[in-house]
Amino acid sequence: MFIFSRDTIAAFATASSSGAVALLRISGPQALDALRRLTRKDNFKARRATLVKIYDGAEVLDQAVAVVYAAPKSYTGQDVAEITLHASAYIKTRVLELLSALGVRPAKAGEFTMRAFMAGKMDLTQAQGVADIIAGKNKAAHKAAMNAMDGKLSQKFKHIKEGLSELLAQIEVRLDDTDEEMPPLDGQAAQKNLSAVMEEAQKLAATFCSGRLIKDGVKAAIAGVPNSGKSSLLNALLGFERAIVSEQSGTTRDTIEAAFNAGGYSVILTDTAGIREHALDAAEKEGMARSKKAVQSADIVIFVKDLNAQDSALQERLLKEISAGGKKVIEVINKADLLPQNFKDGLLISAKTGRGIDALKEEILKVTELSALQEDDILITSAAHYDALIKAAGELKSAGENLKNLELAAEHLRAALRALKELIGEVTTDNILDVIFSKFCVGK
Amino acid sequence: MFIFSRDTIAAFATASSSGAVALLRISGPQALDALRRLTRKDNFKARRATLVKIYDGAEVLDQAVAVVYAAPKSYTGQDVAEITLHASAYIKTRVLELLSALGVRPAKAGEFTMRAFMAGKMDLTQAQGVADIIAGKNKAAHKAAMNAMDGKLSQKFKHIKEGLSELLAQIEVRLDDTDEEMPPLDGQAAQKNLSAVMEEAQKLAATFCSGRLIKDGVKAAIAGVPNSGKSSLLNALLGFERAIVSEQSGTTRDTIEAAFNAGGYSVILTDTAGIREHALDAAEKEGMARSKKAVQSADIVIFVKDLNAQDSALQERLLKEISAGGKKVIEVINKADLLPQNFKDGLLISAKTGRGIDALKEEILKVTELSALQEDDILITSAAHYDALIKAAGELKSAGENLKNLELAAEHLRAALRALKELIGEVTTDNILDVIFSKFCVGK
Repeated sequence: MFIFSRDTIAAFATASSSGAVALLRISGPQALDALRRLTRKDNFKARRATLVKIYDGAEVLDQAVAVVYAAPKSYTGQDVAEITLHASAYIKTRVLELLSALGVRPAKAGEFTMRAFMAGKMDLTQAQGVADIIAGKNKAAHKAAMNAMDGKLSQKFKHIKEGLSELLAQIEVRLDDTDEEMPPLDGQAAQKNLSAVMEEAQKLAATFCSGRLIKDGVKAAIAGVPNSGKSSLLNALLGFERAIVSEQSGTTRDTIEAAFNAGGYSVILTDTAGIREHALDAAEKEGMARSKKAVQSADIVIFVKDLNAQDSALQERLLKEISAGGKKVIEVINKADLLPQNFKDGLLISAKTGRGIDALKEEILKVTELSALQEDDILITSAAHYDALIKAAGELKSAGENLKNLELAAEHLRAALRALKELIGEVTTDNILDVIFSKFCVGK
Repeated sequence: MFIFSRDTIAAFATASSSGAVALLRISGPQALDALRRLTRKDNFKARRATLVKIYDGAEVLDQAVAVVYAAPKSYTGQDVAEITLHASAYIKTRVLELLSALGVRPAKAGEFTMRAFMAGKMDLTQAQGVADIIAGKNKAAHKAAMNAMDGKLSQKFKHIKEGLSELLAQIEVRLDDTDEEMPPLDGQAAQKNLSAVMEEAQKLAATFCSGRLIKDGVKAAIAGVPNSGKSSLLNALLGFERAIVSEQSGTTRDTIEAAFNAGGYSVILTDTAGIREHALDAAEKEGMARSKKAVQSADIVIFVKDLNAQDSALQERLLKEISAGGKKVIEVINKADLLPQNFKDGLLISAKTGRGIDALKEEILKVTELSALQEDDILITSAAHYDALIKAAGELKSAGENLKNLELAAEHLRAALRALKELIGEVTTDNILDVIFSKFCVGK
């Protein structure tokens, strides 16, 4: 695997569409030599922004700024040269051609960060944090990613790992103790310690409920009978006219997806076709099938009740069906501007006047328990982290059930430890690394 | 106008789509103070890449790299801070909000380069070169822009300007010479000098023919009767299947535009509907109208001749019509793979086998006179430059015709001088600056 790091790689770390400047990164043993040949300049001081000319044969390709980071004090731990060029399509293509002629190959997605990981600059959790930071679209997702990149999340993993290692050591020392010089294991104390570590793993695993919603956004489906005002509610939540609204019932057929920000969290709304007993035509039938699918895959359902629904029995049945599936449902009554003033039952919304919209946003955060999060909560946002923690907790449980058989208990503890080590990247396989780093963008 | 430079501006100089990192530029008297507040760090050494944390209240928004350029040794001539951040949508939005709270406003398009111009870091021709470099898509356009940014083009303008100033001085000294102590103006010598400067201006203006083709690309329309193989020729030139080709005559209706590179120059091909006497339907009629338009606005026309054309009289008439308009026409005979081997008349092409395609590319460069350009030719690529040079040449001519009337001659020379000074930016108006810098991207 370390073979990758012996060659020198280059890629633009900035977006490929048009801009004023573009940042080219070169990392590897030939990075400084390549920079010297491109610029025909020898004396680069580390970390000093230096005005250079980039030569293409006899011609000057560009005037640029170069910064050199000497190994090991660089992002990748290797010699790194960064060149800020003018962002023209011609310059960008040409400089990569010139580098290629010097034996520098284009970097693959995530390859710089992979090298940083391999050089021990960061563990795997931190490396994933880097990718999540770049992808972060809202405050909460950004913060979770910063905690991962900072190493705060790694510390949590390491703490669990240390507890585990200690438990395992206590057992292994007794397995090695063929002369039986050690006092026997204090089963009760061991069970207590084991439970404490298990709880820690379970608690961290449980943060995935919120972490997933933060990273991917809360999927909220708007459901209800036809013409209850679902599309106008969607528009009111988004703050602009995304969906077509008409008096005609059954206007929405395709499901419409759009995201908005509620208190720093992303909510991805799906507007669906209204459900009625019998579809008028094939298009509406297909629309209703999609509605049901959207409701099934949503994290929460916003059910828009129509107090004047033609078929109120159907409305109640629908609501019951959705709730029965264990889905979290927020019932809202739209068109509150048309109700008598003293009417107070459920969450009253007026898409028209904006009444109740903020309350609905708060309710979404409350129902999803996002509003209960504390400022300094550290969350996991990755399914792989969740799986590893659940696996570790399961092995810990099995170990506790087998404390009478130290061989077996040790086996389970080792499995738990392996799961955590893979998480941090202390034990890695090519497969894990490929999966993680291929999700990066090129140039990072 | 200099009021602009007293406030501090910030913008991302890198493209706004996703990337690994993004470069934020801050320029103005408050740039270093803003950097210090963002990073809670005091000691920045000029031109040293420094690892920093960007603070958002109590939280760390990002880990970044900052470089400071102290006035006047910076791009804009002002204090400049550049911060390389992770390129997340959240970080990018938030950091601009934080800067705004510190009194740093978002930069307008081209505002950094405008400040560089105002600080005397570059003249107007060089500033325009910067914008052209970023827009440069091929080698020739890039080189022309580099010559402009380098100041090589400015030198040409300045040389003409100096010749003009000298002529004007000789006349003005005599106008001031009320005591008639000077010998009278040597009319013949003055005329000779005048003509030399005028020729220089005209010669440089004439490079616009090539310069325009280099910067905008050569517009080449493919024309011919239906089913002569125009679309397959387009595909062969592009090197991929851009247009739908069928045995059915009249397949192409919309005009199709696509660019390819011929020897470092961009050629923008337009495939057009074939022209026949009577259109079969409204769509074809509209297609034929567009064909004629495309031919009219093209720099050159590639006329695809069909030796087996059903209506060869129409084909000849079409060809004559196009040539009569003074349009440069390249006649090609497609489907050369179907001709008898010994047939040799005109440029034989086979879109199918690729025969003649390279020869056609060469012919395009020959007809447009681009192949006659020398390595070290310095060209103008801007219509404003062309207009100014033509104006200067015209005024020089008028001055020459009025050498008997020194007052009048001086008037014309002054007008010529003004045109050249505006070109370089020695005389500017807000209007000129707005037009030039608004074409820049934000962040440059």
